[in-house]
Amino acid sequence: MGQGGDEHAGSGLMLTETMPEGVSAFPITPCDAAGRLDGGALSRLLTRLVTPSVASIGLLGSTGSYPYLTRDVRRQALEVAVETVAGRVPILVGVGALRTDEAVRIAQDARAIGASVGLLAVVSYTPLTEDEIVEHFTVVARESGLPLCIYDNPGTTHVAIGPDLAGRLSRIPGVIAIKSPASPVPGIAAHFAALRNAVGPGLSIGFSGDWHATEALLAGGTVWYSVAAGLFPEPCGAILRAVQTGDAEEARRLDAAMEPLWALFRAHSSLRVIYAAATILGFGRPELPRPLLPLPEPARRAVAETLAQLGLT
Amino acid sequence: MGQGGDEHAGSGLMLTETMPEGVSAFPITPCDAAGRLDGGALSRLLTRLVTPSVASIGLLGSTGSYPYLTRDVRRQALEVAVETVAGRVPILVGVGALRTDEAVRIAQDARAIGASVGLLAVVSYTPLTEDEIVEHFTVVARESGLPLCIYDNPGTTHVAIGPDLAGRLSRIPGVIAIKSPASPVPGIAAHFAALRNAVGPGLSIGFSGDWHATEALLAGGTVWYSVAAGLFPEPCGAILRAVQTGDAEEARRLDAAMEPLWALFRAHSSLRVIYAAATILGFGRPELPRPLLPLPEPARRAVAETLAQLGLT
Repeated sequence: MGQGGDEHAGSGLMLTETMPEGVSAFPITPCDAAGRLDGGALSRLLTRLVTPSVASIGLLGSTGSYPYLTRDVRRQALEVAVETVAGRVPILVGVGALRTDEAVRIAQDARAIGASVGLLAVVSYTPLTEDEIVEHFTVVARESGLPLCIYDNPGTTHVAIGPDLAGRLSRIPGVIAIKSPASPVPGIAAHFAALRNAVGPGLSIGFSGDWHATEALLAGGTVWYSVAAGLFPEPCGAILRAVQTGDAEEARRLDAAMEPLWALFRAHSSLRVIYAAATILGFGRPELPRPLLPLPEPARRAVAETLAQLGLT
Repeated sequence: MGQGGDEHAGSGLMLTETMPEGVSAFPITPCDAAGRLDGGALSRLLTRLVTPSVASIGLLGSTGSYPYLTRDVRRQALEVAVETVAGRVPILVGVGALRTDEAVRIAQDARAIGASVGLLAVVSYTPLTEDEIVEHFTVVARESGLPLCIYDNPGTTHVAIGPDLAGRLSRIPGVIAIKSPASPVPGIAAHFAALRNAVGPGLSIGFSGDWHATEALLAGGTVWYSVAAGLFPEPCGAILRAVQTGDAEEARRLDAAMEPLWALFRAHSSLRVIYAAATILGFGRPELPRPLLPLPEPARRAVAETLAQLGLT
């Protein structure tokens, strides 16, 4: 529970062996067109995330475009984050890679630099067997010593981690959490129950997919892995607090107020929308990694209007 | 048709601006566990492919595990291939990468080293829009000057290139061919007709998926992009010749004779089976890139028995 790992406080790193409950804010990784880090913009973004509304920072997640960045740039981004955050918020960091040995090296980097948890997605090209996925997680956990969160992101990896596989992965030493895509209601309660049954009582279960997250939290999830919170932590934190205090009605009201942003996420992908939003808010000129293209001008204008309407600019 | 590009013969490179008709043999790229090239084993494999049964070599395709290899190793493998083949067979080479700029650099390498055609798959993480895919192909074709084959491989990329998108891609200058996954009969004739209608008369249409390929060739495909031919060119060449001479009955008889190998491909993936077969045949000890695991021993034994039964050892 909670942020854990106090026994490590003396090391100067905020190591955590349980996943902090609450909002995990996933910022973009501002880079230029060639994939070079804009460390200043990243640092300003992260400063915005040091707030009681944010329980952890999910650096270099899918929103942080980790698969498109070199190991060096991933290291640099984490160094900027560790320096900026200075232990005030635990940092989760994407450690996924196509090759197991590369994922091990990136997870070792992450631990050495000071990440609390590695987010390990099943990045694949050749479709993997379940045995191969289990072995991948086992080797990365063992060789890095970094606590791992199972990063189930079928929209990008095309691997859906069902309850059986989640159960197998949850029993690997060092695996402490699962980040599951929130399914729509109805069905989210059954999804949560199936996962909980598969992974046992000890594993943190959290959800991604901002527009379904409130119901997933109400169904029992304890972490909201949020793209929106990577730029707008306060409205997401307010929803989370309403859930935590048992006020489902207020949580749903606050979630409904965010619907114009969720609609843009659904229409254009949260990644492209949040890049446009970061530019509108003045966080440099972050470039999506090509082949990803920026939003066309009418969509960019809709983002600007929606942010203004929601009081987010 | 045929191998084209004779006007370039004086340059010492075998440049081709039309796709050679016939079997395109896709070898593995023998590497050690760390992803370092075994150039000697690759050269021996390629020597086996210099035969009238092989119209082109598909180096660093999915079977050649290109997404798992560094740009340096991909360059080394192509250098070994160009030296070994010495202009006797055109070399196609996988140039796919997650980032457009990286795909451009790899395609530029490929052209400089002497590949005839680049195989460009839609490697993706964040799902791409059709506009993004078209822009990706446009930039790689323009910046590299390498003729491109659209490498439609939804089993690995999770992007299916339908006729509409194929039509758009076919109109990009430099795009000369499409490698399409052979669908099962019935349906292959309609699939071929839809593709042909979409891409116009000028584009080469060929098929991958060894166990459906014979029917796809009989339906009109002129290139067989073949995993089996990367190790066993002769039986594949015999099928292709029967198709080319209009002897469908003989083509189907020869294809049926290969069914025990196709069954293993379907059960364990052609990639894992062909790695086992390469080891059985003595091409070093090629290691699949982890997280991919070698076949378990009973399956490996089944491969050895099947090869013996087919007279392929």
